[in-house]
Amino acid sequence: MPILVMKFGGTSVANPDRIRRAAKRVGVEVAKGYDVIVIVSAMAGKTNELVGWVEETSPLYDAREYDAVVSSGENVTAGLMALTLQEMDVPARSWQGWQVPLMTTSAHSAARIREIGTDNIGRKFAEGMKVAVIAGFQGISPEGRVTTLGRGGSDTTAVAFAAAFGAERCDIYTDVDGVYTTDPRICEKARKLDRIAFEEMLELASLGAKVLQTRSVELAMRYHVKLRVLSSFEEQSDEAGTLVCDEEEIMEMKPVAGVAYSRDEAKLTLMSVADRPGIAAIIFSALSDAGVNVDMIVQNISEEGRTDMTFSCPVGEVPRAEAALAAIRTEGRLNFSEAIADRNVAKVSVVGIGMRSQSGVAAKMFKVLSDEGINIKVITTSEIKISVLIDRKYMELAVQALHDAFELDKAD
Amino acid sequence: MPILVMKFGGTSVANPDRIRRAAKRVGVEVAKGYDVIVIVSAMAGKTNELVGWVEETSPLYDAREYDAVVSSGENVTAGLMALTLQEMDVPARSWQGWQVPLMTTSAHSAARIREIGTDNIGRKFAEGMKVAVIAGFQGISPEGRVTTLGRGGSDTTAVAFAAAFGAERCDIYTDVDGVYTTDPRICEKARKLDRIAFEEMLELASLGAKVLQTRSVELAMRYHVKLRVLSSFEEQSDEAGTLVCDEEEIMEMKPVAGVAYSRDEAKLTLMSVADRPGIAAIIFSALSDAGVNVDMIVQNISEEGRTDMTFSCPVGEVPRAEAALAAIRTEGRLNFSEAIADRNVAKVSVVGIGMRSQSGVAAKMFKVLSDEGINIKVITTSEIKISVLIDRKYMELAVQALHDAFELDKAD
Repeated sequence: MPILVMKFGGTSVANPDRIRRAAKRVGVEVAKGYDVIVIVSAMAGKTNELVGWVEETSPLYDAREYDAVVSSGENVTAGLMALTLQEMDVPARSWQGWQVPLMTTSAHSAARIREIGTDNIGRKFAEGMKVAVIAGFQGISPEGRVTTLGRGGSDTTAVAFAAAFGAERCDIYTDVDGVYTTDPRICEKARKLDRIAFEEMLELASLGAKVLQTRSVELAMRYHVKLRVLSSFEEQSDEAGTLVCDEEEIMEMKPVAGVAYSRDEAKLTLMSVADRPGIAAIIFSALSDAGVNVDMIVQNISEEGRTDMTFSCPVGEVPRAEAALAAIRTEGRLNFSEAIADRNVAKVSVVGIGMRSQSGVAAKMFKVLSDEGINIKVITTSEIKISVLIDRKYMELAVQALHDAFELDKAD
Repeated sequence: MPILVMKFGGTSVANPDRIRRAAKRVGVEVAKGYDVIVIVSAMAGKTNELVGWVEETSPLYDAREYDAVVSSGENVTAGLMALTLQEMDVPARSWQGWQVPLMTTSAHSAARIREIGTDNIGRKFAEGMKVAVIAGFQGISPEGRVTTLGRGGSDTTAVAFAAAFGAERCDIYTDVDGVYTTDPRICEKARKLDRIAFEEMLELASLGAKVLQTRSVELAMRYHVKLRVLSSFEEQSDEAGTLVCDEEEIMEMKPVAGVAYSRDEAKLTLMSVADRPGIAAIIFSALSDAGVNVDMIVQNISEEGRTDMTFSCPVGEVPRAEAALAAIRTEGRLNFSEAIADRNVAKVSVVGIGMRSQSGVAAKMFKVLSDEGINIKVITTSEIKISVLIDRKYMELAVQALHDAFELDKAD
């Protein structure tokens, strides 16, 4: 039998009614002739409740016990999903991570999958079981302790099972009906994409389009697992949702696939830093040690041996960044005239594999922003992405103007 | 190091604050030099929530999936307890049933313990761990599925660990401070017992004094595990609570240790039944098949080949009992003139191992009730218990009068 992996997130299994709805979707695929592996998250809100108890109990918790506690929500939904399928006369049973077994590293709370045993589940499929329901997000370490894969880890569980079992496709059911050209909440012309390349999805995911966990997309890309993102709240056809796939499977090649944004950014500039080797290492090691997630980095033109160093980070991390920088100045490891923080910026990016082969995307982006009177503060580029920092008040205008200019509202 | 087992029920671990309180008790025992095995229940209410979801999902559920779901509450409290102890600098870790391993039969939802592996936990104690926190109520079947031991099963888990590890004592922390001579809510003179024999505790437990799961008492009796019942909500001395132990360890020997009652009983009498062999088997097989929990059975003196058959059952089961009896009459398997149900009775019992060697307990009990003008409807006796059915309205009066007459308010 061909195998299909179907993953249901927390809102899709938030209560017994929603689990029934999800189980019906599984039944449809079983009726088509698939053996189905279902991956479930915990009921919406349950993992947060468990995390809350752990943090209340022990601010500097033992990650092994954290994992033992927070993994329990998935055990509940896995059992309930199996029961629901049985009620529909679909032969099903649940599996916890240690029963599969899903072996991981010992990096508790952020474990990586090392191996998925296929024998136990494969034998049950051979005996006539139609659906294996897997508690997502969890595995076991070489020491036999329960591990978890990090928040959103059930997406990664799903892709890993699809790779291990050679599944035809991995369908990720969520509360949105696919991947959009941009956020429909701030651009009403946003259009659902039928297909998107893994590389584009990776850029969009890391830019804050929280449809899929980044690691799951990386894993799918590496093992060529076809990923489909679709809504568990709508009737589905075979063509519903958005297929995330190798770029060879995408016919059309617009230069830009989507416009992403990140609202709460801040820009910090260190004025008049000595321009000599090793300075950047000192600055960014100190920021990393302080837990500051630095995103864009720009070094301005050097004059007379001094330079200005600019970087961006989430606005909430500015106090930590300032403290870390003050400390290295006090210690005499770095000299600068002043650190200027701009807390009112946002990042807007255009992403598309097409820009590899089509020139002029950057020029067009800058012209569009200029025509709207929007000043660009920082620019960074990658092979398939151009990002700019702008004043936050222009963010929605910028997204809408870029969406129009690159004609993202038009089907291919 | 000597080993102590401490079990905390759902109300004792209902939230992180209460878990902290329980952990402090554990810390006190560790400071005395014990290696401690802590057994935890799920937070109060959590197991009911999980059972509710299962029943909503699937009225005739697969018990294997039921067990996978309802066992998850204990995983949460085990992890939180381990974290709390670590915060107090007590070396601790949690263990789920499959990690111990705690092997059970395959009788899901009512599994019996077959074996507890002591190697893993013993090795950790040898390495300096001071507390092993065990998720109660759960184990694994020979097939590697999660099993549960039935409601209240954490008591049984605790006693089984005490037996497997040769623990010095098994302390059951609960929301009452011990076993009483009778229910303090209906008799203000009720007195906490310092000690009670296993046999007496078994009779009291089965009579509705829900302090301990009956199976845990049986197990403790078989393996000579000293059980102590005490409150997790009061400061404790070494002599707190009630010790449940072999009768040889009890010095005093009052004939009666306690007065128990069961409020919502009913009495059914089948009038004029043919008095021939096999009739009782027909009646009570039919009632058992109908799920009626028959308690007391009395057959009145036979006259002219006919007899009256009387039995008691919980008042809520009377409709089922009447339907079952009507069915066997309709089928021609049994003939009786009428079935009379009395829904307004209660059972009152006196229990004590002392009555084995001291005569006159029954006579005294009947005289006390007679002096109060209370009519006895049915009497049954065992070696260490005398039970009577009386009108429900006299139940509290009977308990108080018997408590006084046997001087249970007086310490030994």
